[in-house]
Amino acid sequence: MRLQHPASKDKKIVLIVGGGFAGLAAAKALANKKEVEVVLVDRRNHHLFQPLLYQVATAGLNPSDIAVPIRAQFSDALNVGVHLGKVHEVNLDGRFARIEDVEVDFDYLILACGAQHSYFGNPQWEEHAPGLKSVEQATEIRRRILSAFEDAENEFDPMKQAALMNFVVVGGGPTGVELAGAIADIARTVLVKDFKRINAASAQVMLVEAGPRILAAFDEKLSKHATEDLRELGVQVRLNSKVEKIDGEGVVINGEFTPARSVFWAAGVQASKIELTPKIETDRAGRVIVEKDFSVPRYQNVFVIGDMAHFDLGDNKLLPGLAPAAMQAGRFAASAILDSIAGKKRKAFTYVDKGQMATIGKRKAISQYGRLRMTGIVAWVAWLFVHVFYLIGFKNRLAVMAEWTWSYVFSKRGSRLITSRDWKLDS
Amino acid sequence: MRLQHPASKDKKIVLIVGGGFAGLAAAKALANKKEVEVVLVDRRNHHLFQPLLYQVATAGLNPSDIAVPIRAQFSDALNVGVHLGKVHEVNLDGRFARIEDVEVDFDYLILACGAQHSYFGNPQWEEHAPGLKSVEQATEIRRRILSAFEDAENEFDPMKQAALMNFVVVGGGPTGVELAGAIADIARTVLVKDFKRINAASAQVMLVEAGPRILAAFDEKLSKHATEDLRELGVQVRLNSKVEKIDGEGVVINGEFTPARSVFWAAGVQASKIELTPKIETDRAGRVIVEKDFSVPRYQNVFVIGDMAHFDLGDNKLLPGLAPAAMQAGRFAASAILDSIAGKKRKAFTYVDKGQMATIGKRKAISQYGRLRMTGIVAWVAWLFVHVFYLIGFKNRLAVMAEWTWSYVFSKRGSRLITSRDWKLDS
Repeated sequence: MRLQHPASKDKKIVLIVGGGFAGLAAAKALANKKEVEVVLVDRRNHHLFQPLLYQVATAGLNPSDIAVPIRAQFSDALNVGVHLGKVHEVNLDGRFARIEDVEVDFDYLILACGAQHSYFGNPQWEEHAPGLKSVEQATEIRRRILSAFEDAENEFDPMKQAALMNFVVVGGGPTGVELAGAIADIARTVLVKDFKRINAASAQVMLVEAGPRILAAFDEKLSKHATEDLRELGVQVRLNSKVEKIDGEGVVINGEFTPARSVFWAAGVQASKIELTPKIETDRAGRVIVEKDFSVPRYQNVFVIGDMAHFDLGDNKLLPGLAPAAMQAGRFAASAILDSIAGKKRKAFTYVDKGQMATIGKRKAISQYGRLRMTGIVAWVAWLFVHVFYLIGFKNRLAVMAEWTWSYVFSKRGSRLITSRDWKLDS
Repeated sequence: MRLQHPASKDKKIVLIVGGGFAGLAAAKALANKKEVEVVLVDRRNHHLFQPLLYQVATAGLNPSDIAVPIRAQFSDALNVGVHLGKVHEVNLDGRFARIEDVEVDFDYLILACGAQHSYFGNPQWEEHAPGLKSVEQATEIRRRILSAFEDAENEFDPMKQAALMNFVVVGGGPTGVELAGAIADIARTVLVKDFKRINAASAQVMLVEAGPRILAAFDEKLSKHATEDLRELGVQVRLNSKVEKIDGEGVVINGEFTPARSVFWAAGVQASKIELTPKIETDRAGRVIVEKDFSVPRYQNVFVIGDMAHFDLGDNKLLPGLAPAAMQAGRFAASAILDSIAGKKRKAFTYVDKGQMATIGKRKAISQYGRLRMTGIVAWVAWLFVHVFYLIGFKNRLAVMAEWTWSYVFSKRGSRLITSRDWKLDS
């Protein structure tokens, strides 16, 4: 079936696939522009503030604190239609996409489907080591962390109990660092008060990094600082360590087995796959290699932005997979489309580096911006305000500040819920 | 394996199964009493404020706003151990229970496992008509309601679109009334702003009751009033209507088929099953018929309380399945145990009727307390304060007040999240 689009003929149809930072920024930049009719498609009904997802995984925030319905962002934009669905394939020459069983024509296309975890050819590891990209994965990780302590409390075999109290986080990027720090923190400050047979503070958290240092995208000094901070929190940081096996019993690292029932994956990512006809060249991580205006070679009307794009900044540097970069790309693609419609020449994209931050536990962080470097509580306060400021929606900002104040003052975590995967009776 | 309980020999072990209103009240009444060591077991890690569960199902509240970790309630009670697990069987003569693969001895036992939905011998209906007893069921209902509107927005076939916009709630008790009212409300005040192809306000909500009136436990005048209020909200109330079939296409009521993709079950309940040896007499709803002190016939040391108990108040009346009644029973069982240990005669249980309330949509409610009857906004304000007051935890009270103020003022719902059942990649 072909979508009968209500757009008048003098409007161009812009199809945007993906409601993450990149796609949402593009759609917002095109909202209420009379030249275009925007169709925004996502498989999920919500935009997710991914930088705080680890807080949901560690019971610090509610899913709805960091997720907003995409639809609600465009209530007042009459030219933006939001559709829940999966894009199965895109025909670049025919200028249409198949969404579920409907074909949608487009004049311009923006692909912003983000990235997923990659288990480096070991998909069987996923069951034992969930990644952290979606609300469902965050609540699954939360379930596993909290259940491990519950099971340890009920366990009489000391070996099994030790395996339950061992947590392994694979991957020393920001997500891995933040997750490991938060697990150590929740064990030592929150859960320690609740359990009587076990000492929750004795939980072991191990952060495994294949490279020579964690947070490799940061300054070397800062990544050393973060390593110290993590060790102070009680996280064992293992560098130059390769994960060779993950199963229900534990992990094999550099040939050595560590028993651990809870393993979480924050290592490789690969671009989300979408079937393009004709095929377009991608890099090894599956990212589409785009031109200087984010367009696809030979298709000036097709843009790939966000984590799905391989954008060369020169000097052997790629545009980083950070929220500010994705939003800049989204806004750029939108303006490039408007320029094309107006018959103007497209401007060149210039990346404005907004710096980067990572938090370690409850009171420390590292941050770099230009030549400015911050560590410790100063960086943490900066981290806090930046993250609250960029949350979408006034209510979410209030809710997150309230949750954080609460947990900071009382060392409590508001959403220590274990929910199961099944909703039926007796589940 | 037998639990090596750390209790000293002069302490009696009280095993409490179930952390709902009844079990939690009993455990709290026994906390820090030096005569007893309490073992509280639940299959879930959280106590749930069930009267507000319909608000989670209709995106008004977060799960964690109405759920608190059971464990956190007893951080300061050294004599209360909390265990996550399922009780598989209880041997009343041997005085032990099997929890997962551990046998736990007890001197006193309090069974408070609550109730589940009953599909009156049609378990195949569950898939198409989830009930509302757990957080998982609430988020599943939320997923179905929100997805139905999303699918309707994408649907081109007018027949299918109509079926997507039809919502049927089976059962005219407080849960059914509150759920039907909230669905009508969210469609007409919140979702109507978000969708562009469909008119969300045109959603049809039908409340089906087998008996001659809804809210049969209330005064006849009040239930008429509630029926009027529901109709004003746009809910079609069908009395004397028997559901004969539910499948993925719709429902058959009194021989007539209504297409509806979303059907929710708030009709029959039955007591949760637990294998007792020897068997104890139950009523038709599976409730254990208890003595005047909630003990089981012939077992003075075993109590059944809450929705699991059939307690005869005389005059053909049973103790109602309401939170205040369950809490009173819990506190009574605790004091009966302490009396027995002290060698005192048990007091008789006297039920203090705290009245009952039900809310209809966002501004109306009915309430009866003794000879006092309230309706409309007055009853609604009373409902609001009573429900906030009885929520466990200061933070939850604040959070719920904030959510409600927000949604009242701005007609928004904070947690319009569609989450799926699976957390894996590509799900």
